[in-house]
Amino acid sequence: VRLDDHGSQRSGLDPTTYAFTHRVRVRFAETDAMGIVHHANYLLYLEEARVEYLRSIGRPYTEMRSDGTDHAVLECFVQYRAPLHFDDQVDIHLRLAGTTRATFQIDYLVTVDGSPRATASTAHGAINAKGRPVRLPTWLVELAQAG
Amino acid sequence: VRLDDHGSQRSGLDPTTYAFTHRVRVRFAETDAMGIVHHANYLLYLEEARVEYLRSIGRPYTEMRSDGTDHAVLECFVQYRAPLHFDDQVDIHLRLAGTTRATFQIDYLVTVDGSPRATASTAHGAINAKGRPVRLPTWLVELAQAG
Amino acid sequence: VRLDDHGSQRSGLDPTTYAFTHRVRVRFAETDAMGIVHHANYLLYLEEARVEYLRSIGRPYTEMRSDGTDHAVLECFVQYRAPLHFDDQVDIHLRLAGTTRATFQIDYLVTVDGSPRATASTAHGAINAKGRPVRLPTWLVELAQAG
Amino acid sequence: VRLDDHGSQRSGLDPTTYAFTHRVRVRFAETDAMGIVHHANYLLYLEEARVEYLRSIGRPYTEMRSDGTDHAVLECFVQYRAPLHFDDQVDIHLRLAGTTRATFQIDYLVTVDGSPRATASTAHGAINAKGRPVRLPTWLVELAQAG
Repeated sequence: VRLDDHGSQRSGLDPTTYAFTHRVRVRFAETDAMGIVHHANYLLYLEEARVEYLRSIGRPYTEMRSDGTDHAVLECFVQYRAPLHFDDQVDIHLRLAGTTRATFQIDYLVTVDGSPRATASTAHGAINAKGRPVRLPTWLVELAQAG
Repeated sequence: VRLDDHGSQRSGLDPTTYAFTHRVRVRFAETDAMGIVHHANYLLYLEEARVEYLRSIGRPYTEMRSDGTDHAVLECFVQYRAPLHFDDQVDIHLRLAGTTRATFQIDYLVTVDGSPRATASTAHGAINAKGRPVRLPTWLVELAQAG
Repeated sequence: VRLDDHGSQRSGLDPTTYAFTHRVRVRFAETDAMGIVHHANYLLYLEEARVEYLRSIGRPYTEMRSDGTDHAVLECFVQYRAPLHFDDQVDIHLRLAGTTRATFQIDYLVTVDGSPRATASTAHGAINAKGRPVRLPTWLVELAQAG
Repeated sequence: VRLDDHGSQRSGLDPTTYAFTHRVRVRFAETDAMGIVHHANYLLYLEEARVEYLRSIGRPYTEMRSDGTDHAVLECFVQYRAPLHFDDQVDIHLRLAGTTRATFQIDYLVTVDGSPRATASTAHGAINAKGRPVRLPTWLVELAQAG
């Protein structure tokens, strides 16, 4: 698996091109001594948005996990464009960006008041309880094709 | 279980009264927008010190876990005395402070260059893979009595 | 400053005795290899609830910070009663539990579906931009007396 | 700034091609309910290794910060190849991979017992206390040319 070489351009800056939006509010604990959100914490926002996206399409991640399937993170890419601050209301826009037999990619745009703060992409593989790759479920492949 | 009501006094300020010391260096990610280490991250230092203490007495936590026993955290108390900053070399002094049939307490002193920054206590219970309380191993009870 | 010696009993199990409730949903990143929320992360929930409480009473923490006042955490105590799991909807109940000239205490009850998962208390001091203690604002003292 | 399109290949799997190695031990708190290190926490290891690298070449990050310069993270890319577990001793190999007038890139290889677990790249910009981009110091440009 390899994130698309032009991933960051494909994660464009137009929120209307994303399928789903989830809002988080920045915790004080997520800031660092530069007074802004630490770069690692963006990945927590992306993950929370993925979980809410799956819930919104009727495929809650908890059900997948109790069925023995996990979504391992294979790759991540984040481009930080402008800082986030404590108490900001942050919108995570996302869309399913493509699949292979065993992997899928999600693209993200992070905004505050409509202004871009970051773009990102993550690649995931479906794995079973032993950590072995398994085929993506049909609904996920079809969803990517429809999107 | 209940941490001793005078726990913070028992976690005295004299490093020589503690059985074990472990040093950590503050990560930038552990600071917050006040420019100091976020209070929740002290618990990570205490945990890392517990793990190193168990290793130092020949009872590595990974072995306990592969034998099906975990040490659930039942209570924690931290008194923050002076801030920690990025890149500080922090000494975590600890001692086993008491046991019951199923629980044990650890007291901590946190210093930088010998100067106290925090005192703390944690209470733990031995649990099996299903999360049920189990008896403490004999060596742990004996260690507490010896200490 | 010293948390009340019977703090954990005062943080009772009846949600109706708390002034404010804030709901968070457990992130996957907040779990650990025991399959439950790591004990340090409860402090993040308490902090988020404090911030929302201050907003709800018209005293947003961001305003205090831009006025040069911070609320340093002086002490924390948490009693873990039952684990939290990924995707749980967690209610953080809190109340202002007392003040001195420069410090205040908050008590918490953490529940899921009304069932208690943890009780906690935190003690805070008002500090200025140089980290020096300052008097609590009048409104905070009056609020504690009224509560 | 844009991470090199073939960054993940340039972050090759041969540890001897990296300039510096820093070892960390996985904390229990860094694992998640899959029983492995959560993907966001790799960024903390990379950051800790960068800080130790700067110290090793006589340019401690704390000095830069007290001189009013920070290294903002502009981009990050991580490819996760095999999981990390609690208590693993993890080697972070890194090298300075290139500079522009205001930015530099670092490539990483993450191994356990010599076996690759992840490759990564981060891009950074020098900024002043107001968050404005400033020129890289000469020593950093020369170091990149020498490397």
